[in-house]
Amino acid sequence: MRIGIAGLGLIGGSLALALRGGHEITGFDSDERARAAAGAAGVRTVARVEELAPADAVIVATPLASVVSTLERLSSRSDGAVLLDTGSLKRGVVEWAARAPAAVRIVGGHPMAGSTASGFAAADPDLFRGRPFLLVPTERSDDGAMAIAGAIAREVGAIVTVCSADVHDRAMARLIAAPLATAAALALGAASEPLVGAAGPGFRDATRLADTPLDLAVDVLFGSARDTGEALTSVIEGLERFRDALGRDDRESVRGLLRTARSVRKELG
Amino acid sequence: MRIGIAGLGLIGGSLALALRGGHEITGFDSDERARAAAGAAGVRTVARVEELAPADAVIVATPLASVVSTLERLSSRSDGAVLLDTGSLKRGVVEWAARAPAAVRIVGGHPMAGSTASGFAAADPDLFRGRPFLLVPTERSDDGAMAIAGAIAREVGAIVTVCSADVHDRAMARLIAAPLATAAALALGAASEPLVGAAGPGFRDATRLADTPLDLAVDVLFGSARDTGEALTSVIEGLERFRDALGRDDRESVRGLLRTARSVRKELG
Repeated sequence: MRIGIAGLGLIGGSLALALRGGHEITGFDSDERARAAAGAAGVRTVARVEELAPADAVIVATPLASVVSTLERLSSRSDGAVLLDTGSLKRGVVEWAARAPAAVRIVGGHPMAGSTASGFAAADPDLFRGRPFLLVPTERSDDGAMAIAGAIAREVGAIVTVCSADVHDRAMARLIAAPLATAAALALGAASEPLVGAAGPGFRDATRLADTPLDLAVDVLFGSARDTGEALTSVIEGLERFRDALGRDDRESVRGLLRTARSVRKELG
Repeated sequence: MRIGIAGLGLIGGSLALALRGGHEITGFDSDERARAAAGAAGVRTVARVEELAPADAVIVATPLASVVSTLERLSSRSDGAVLLDTGSLKRGVVEWAARAPAAVRIVGGHPMAGSTASGFAAADPDLFRGRPFLLVPTERSDDGAMAIAGAIAREVGAIVTVCSADVHDRAMARLIAAPLATAAALALGAASEPLVGAAGPGFRDATRLADTPLDLAVDVLFGSARDTGEALTSVIEGLERFRDALGRDDRESVRGLLRTARSVRKELG
């Protein structure tokens, strides 16, 4: 296939390196240095995003804030190309797709892979191997478009799961945003603790996500603020159940809560 | 010094291995197999806990539930020996010391070291190296007793901090019990999540403590239930502050909370 990739950071760059063996790849990035780095690694690049079409598929791997505007710019000339984004939230893409021109083919995607590093320099063709790649159909996803998106995800070694934008964004709140806020709340609870320096690996692990870079953390929490709020309410209710059971010396209830929590951990595989 | 050690599990066994180079060590365990394992490793053992005295110090490294009863059995014949326990909560020891015979010398201790393994087979002379060793004076701690306890802690390579039983037990609630309940509450919040299998390393790390063995987890949470309850209230309040700020789209408040959380992480060193 001819595949365009808009955004040559960690995700777009890794897709370019993983796919170039079997496909004709063209990349674009608004940052000239990213284009130069990709070019030096043997990826053909263009200087305008519109030049990624015509193609069989164009992957939009820009920062989340630019995904919809990039899809919009591509839609006027996509000419049958499947537009597949890789952003971490999907409702915005699905909402935009509902009002996009009828001929445009759009599939939402979210490869659940990453690293603390960023930029093309950190790109790795094996980044997606064995990791989930969530696909979200939109009102502009036909069967052929879903098949192309699925083929791309499988070719980079990822495991495809199809879900709705609502299910996707709620899951991200529970699995990414809530753990981050909870790690921070746990650290806040020890803010006046004189012995905090004596904390062991348990406290360190449990609060690690509080070290997420500040701008990224704010984006994660506010990306779908309503879902994050609901996920936090769930965690608060769980903590209240523990506190209530402790208050009435109810060991059986605490055991039950711990058993359920352990069963969730088991599903992580 | 002549040092007796009651309880030859991971902690007592590691103390025996770490101290035997410079001291005359005698060990006791109620489990004959533990005594045999220690004996095979070259540690002299006795079959009754009372035989650990006379000595300069007797370390009580039994499970938490047996610490006070073991101290009691030793107190009638300790004859000036410093009794030093290693349990993870200190109020019970301090309360018992207040009503112990006037001649008995008692110091509370808590080496903040451990491993998922247990028993003498897992004992390691380097277990305490670079780790905190908290010492809690009681009404039966004279200067000489504190000096002996401090010397033992430093000789095994630990870093000594002296604090009150209240400060100690509150800290354990914040640094051990609250993280455990919070990890479980986070997992509970994802109990009905269809995409939980897609969770990344952040969710895994943040919920890891939910895998604590059930009996140990219940002991940790109920060891000082009132402190645990107060620590959970702190975490709940932190989560409510995040949720409220999200609800009113107040990014500056969220940034402030995250900055404070990061400053606590920095104190972990």
